[in-house]
Amino acid sequence: MNNAQAHAFTLDEIAQRLGARLVGDGSRRVSGLATLSDAGPEDITFLANRAYLKHLAGTRAAAVLLHPSHVDDCPTACLTLDNPYLGYAELSTLFDPLAARDAPGVHPSAVVAEGVSLGQEVQIGPQAVIEAGVRLGDRVIIGPGSVVGADAQIGEHSRLHANVTVCHGVVIGKRAILHSGCVIGGDGFGFAHDGGRWHKIAQLGGVILGDDVEVGSCSSIDRGALGDTVIGNDVKIDSQVQIAHNVQIGDHSALAGCVGIAGSTRVGKHCMLGGGVGLSGHLSLCDGVQVTGMSLVTNSIHQPGVYSSGTGAMGNAQWRKNAVRFKQLDDIAKRLIRLEKEQRSR
Amino acid sequence: MNNAQAHAFTLDEIAQRLGARLVGDGSRRVSGLATLSDAGPEDITFLANRAYLKHLAGTRAAAVLLHPSHVDDCPTACLTLDNPYLGYAELSTLFDPLAARDAPGVHPSAVVAEGVSLGQEVQIGPQAVIEAGVRLGDRVIIGPGSVVGADAQIGEHSRLHANVTVCHGVVIGKRAILHSGCVIGGDGFGFAHDGGRWHKIAQLGGVILGDDVEVGSCSSIDRGALGDTVIGNDVKIDSQVQIAHNVQIGDHSALAGCVGIAGSTRVGKHCMLGGGVGLSGHLSLCDGVQVTGMSLVTNSIHQPGVYSSGTGAMGNAQWRKNAVRFKQLDDIAKRLIRLEKEQRSR
Amino acid sequence: MNNAQAHAFTLDEIAQRLGARLVGDGSRRVSGLATLSDAGPEDITFLANRAYLKHLAGTRAAAVLLHPSHVDDCPTACLTLDNPYLGYAELSTLFDPLAARDAPGVHPSAVVAEGVSLGQEVQIGPQAVIEAGVRLGDRVIIGPGSVVGADAQIGEHSRLHANVTVCHGVVIGKRAILHSGCVIGGDGFGFAHDGGRWHKIAQLGGVILGDDVEVGSCSSIDRGALGDTVIGNDVKIDSQVQIAHNVQIGDHSALAGCVGIAGSTRVGKHCMLGGGVGLSGHLSLCDGVQVTGMSLVTNSIHQPGVYSSGTGAMGNAQWRKNAVRFKQLDDIAKRLIRLEKEQRSR
Repeated sequence: MNNAQAHAFTLDEIAQRLGARLVGDGSRRVSGLATLSDAGPEDITFLANRAYLKHLAGTRAAAVLLHPSHVDDCPTACLTLDNPYLGYAELSTLFDPLAARDAPGVHPSAVVAEGVSLGQEVQIGPQAVIEAGVRLGDRVIIGPGSVVGADAQIGEHSRLHANVTVCHGVVIGKRAILHSGCVIGGDGFGFAHDGGRWHKIAQLGGVILGDDVEVGSCSSIDRGALGDTVIGNDVKIDSQVQIAHNVQIGDHSALAGCVGIAGSTRVGKHCMLGGGVGLSGHLSLCDGVQVTGMSLVTNSIHQPGVYSSGTGAMGNAQWRKNAVRFKQLDDIAKRLIRLEKEQRSR
Repeated sequence: MNNAQAHAFTLDEIAQRLGARLVGDGSRRVSGLATLSDAGPEDITFLANRAYLKHLAGTRAAAVLLHPSHVDDCPTACLTLDNPYLGYAELSTLFDPLAARDAPGVHPSAVVAEGVSLGQEVQIGPQAVIEAGVRLGDRVIIGPGSVVGADAQIGEHSRLHANVTVCHGVVIGKRAILHSGCVIGGDGFGFAHDGGRWHKIAQLGGVILGDDVEVGSCSSIDRGALGDTVIGNDVKIDSQVQIAHNVQIGDHSALAGCVGIAGSTRVGKHCMLGGGVGLSGHLSLCDGVQVTGMSLVTNSIHQPGVYSSGTGAMGNAQWRKNAVRFKQLDDIAKRLIRLEKEQRSR
Repeated sequence: MNNAQAHAFTLDEIAQRLGARLVGDGSRRVSGLATLSDAGPEDITFLANRAYLKHLAGTRAAAVLLHPSHVDDCPTACLTLDNPYLGYAELSTLFDPLAARDAPGVHPSAVVAEGVSLGQEVQIGPQAVIEAGVRLGDRVIIGPGSVVGADAQIGEHSRLHANVTVCHGVVIGKRAILHSGCVIGGDGFGFAHDGGRWHKIAQLGGVILGDDVEVGSCSSIDRGALGDTVIGNDVKIDSQVQIAHNVQIGDHSALAGCVGIAGSTRVGKHCMLGGGVGLSGHLSLCDGVQVTGMSLVTNSIHQPGVYSSGTGAMGNAQWRKNAVRFKQLDDIAKRLIRLEKEQRSR
């Protein structure tokens, strides 16, 4: 599985598909895509990061996709593009074995309620469950063991992998990709406290996912209490992410693994949250905010830019001493102020 | 899905159900519940937080549930209660479409082992699996694709949503709500180390959930090594939470999303753990402890109160400088002490 | 479920199985395993940690597994071993009820594609799905509702619990244990950015798990972009862990709950990551590194040892003051340097 070999293409075909300029023999065929150092003579590869330039001269690949400025360094055929990493993305979909594998139809073991609306060429896998009132757009793929709850809607070309759960009434746009184990539309965490006990607040809102949303394995997006949890277009969500009720995420934002966002927080467009970032509830982050890994944000952010919290890792013995001093930090600051005053008063 | 419209009620009916005092026309009917700003003329709404008082005058709702002190500010019919947020919780269950949807019975595609004990009006959804020796109380609902392992017991009125896993021998009380993707009773993480290798310790204990427990999407509660992992009554657990083997959680405690609790730690009653909080193993937290989001607790806590760790988020450029200084913190403190001594010795 | 009673053994049988020295009546039978304080007269127990020595004198157990140095303190029969905790691990597997429960065969509700390769005594549970081209080794157990994607391979004696997802092409070694809700081989999080939009990079690599790997409930291991994500032999992974694409984990390493590892990072052999630890992408950790709970590692580590970050928990009022001072820390350090200079210049 080191490289994909589902198809073979001539370099001419690839150049045309990518809008790239070809230098070399366009009739040569490639059947796989691999990294500069792993690629063999039947593979195409790419150079998109100067850190890998050292591997270019020694590559055994049939062809290299790269920036025009590196053509002279390339020992073999090459295709040039201003954004070779984007070209790699396009190449990767050409060689994706999943794209070819699927045949439309409803597996006999699937349970599809009466009156469900199925678009053209829908595929429903073994043991899947489609409840009453569901609408699936054209070419939707529902993986094995996945459950789509009553009245949910899934837009055309969307794919649920295996064992995904989409709860009742959830609305999903076009071209969504939902990975295994993710749950869209579980209850938000809402309770009224009275007499020392918790009283459940039924979560009556929904979840709306825009177009081109991807959700990673084992991630969860909770339904709104009243009103909806809303994920914009082209939002990319990694694995193990938790999005609480009534959160709103703006278009084109990306959330790395293990991010947690508390209730009713709004994240702007084009934001990027690093792995393990936590956002408190009822905050607002403006467009273009980036938060570095494992930072906790407890206040709204009104200026685009990069934000961080926490401390870097260090040897445990050194850390123990510093962590103790952190607990004295306010006292340290006050003593410094006192010293400065005494100094000045001489 | 912005508001729920499963039922319609007169304001008299609602006032009686909630024990609220009605000011206005009791024969008016409402068919939905929405926020002050979203509610239309067929909806009831509520005011439970002074931050939303500004929306009261402009509401288009048929009626507002609020504290008696706000009656004069209300432009329409109102119902008064000392705890309007609690009233909202009760209202939300009235308008919950899930409450009406379910019909009892075992779906023909479900696999139910012989000799399983099923209470009255149990509902078992499509593709569910109920293994041998299981006992389900009256009106238990098992969602599509959920698996209940051998000899597990689930108390009356409990509900497993879709794709839930309850492992063998787990005991769950009454009125539990388990959301999709959660796993109750997977193995605890126990190994003996010998000769540079790990040797598995079979996890022979169980998991016991009290009454009125809720567990969020994709959360996991591991079974005990010996003895049980015990979750008390009325404990509320959000999504993406991990509870390790032999943990004990006291009654009425609430754990927000992404909390992680290591093995054998005991959390008291009426505790609240913010999102992403981590508790080390073998600790004891007394009753009434609150821990703020993403704090790490590595020592037992013997006094009720609010506890925190970490640093707030700031601009990355500023943070980088401060994070470097954190690594020098013990040195900074020592140099301050030296200066103070020199100052004093003059 | 406080102790396991699947079998009964004489103390002679147990001593022989464990290679332990028996002091007492070898014909006595025990039918359960429990802790020193919980064990009854039909149970065997163990002492492996001096913290529990106080419970030894009062134990009601039939026999105690312990270190030779504690024989004289033991009020009943005992079995001695140099590593009694390892002995406990072996005992636990003797009393594991899961070991006895399973009967081989394919449940009639399971969907197994044509041409799948099944080893001897394979067991496939209800509602499971085995896609085309899969190879399952001898005595593999596939739990209810689990899905094994096309062309995946699972080595002999491995067990998937309920509702596990193994995606297409994943390769799993011998004696693996995958707990419920885990997902092996979901897509890595890879996109090219162009024109303000994200363009998906198809994840064409796979996941390879060595022998004796355990993965906890709801954990996810993403497939490689190109090339594979590789988990070494005897690697133990707890619940709610996220491992991104192209990560490599060395043999015998252990990852506690809620760990997150970003893309392409390499972890050495015999490493231990505490609960909630985060590793940034493209790092390298050498063999023998330990990272304490909830630390964030953003740089490679080249020396074995214990590493930490963060601050310990404290009362919130005290913490608020210190957290404010943290934001001033660089300024505090500079003012201290100025004071020191002034002091020296006198």
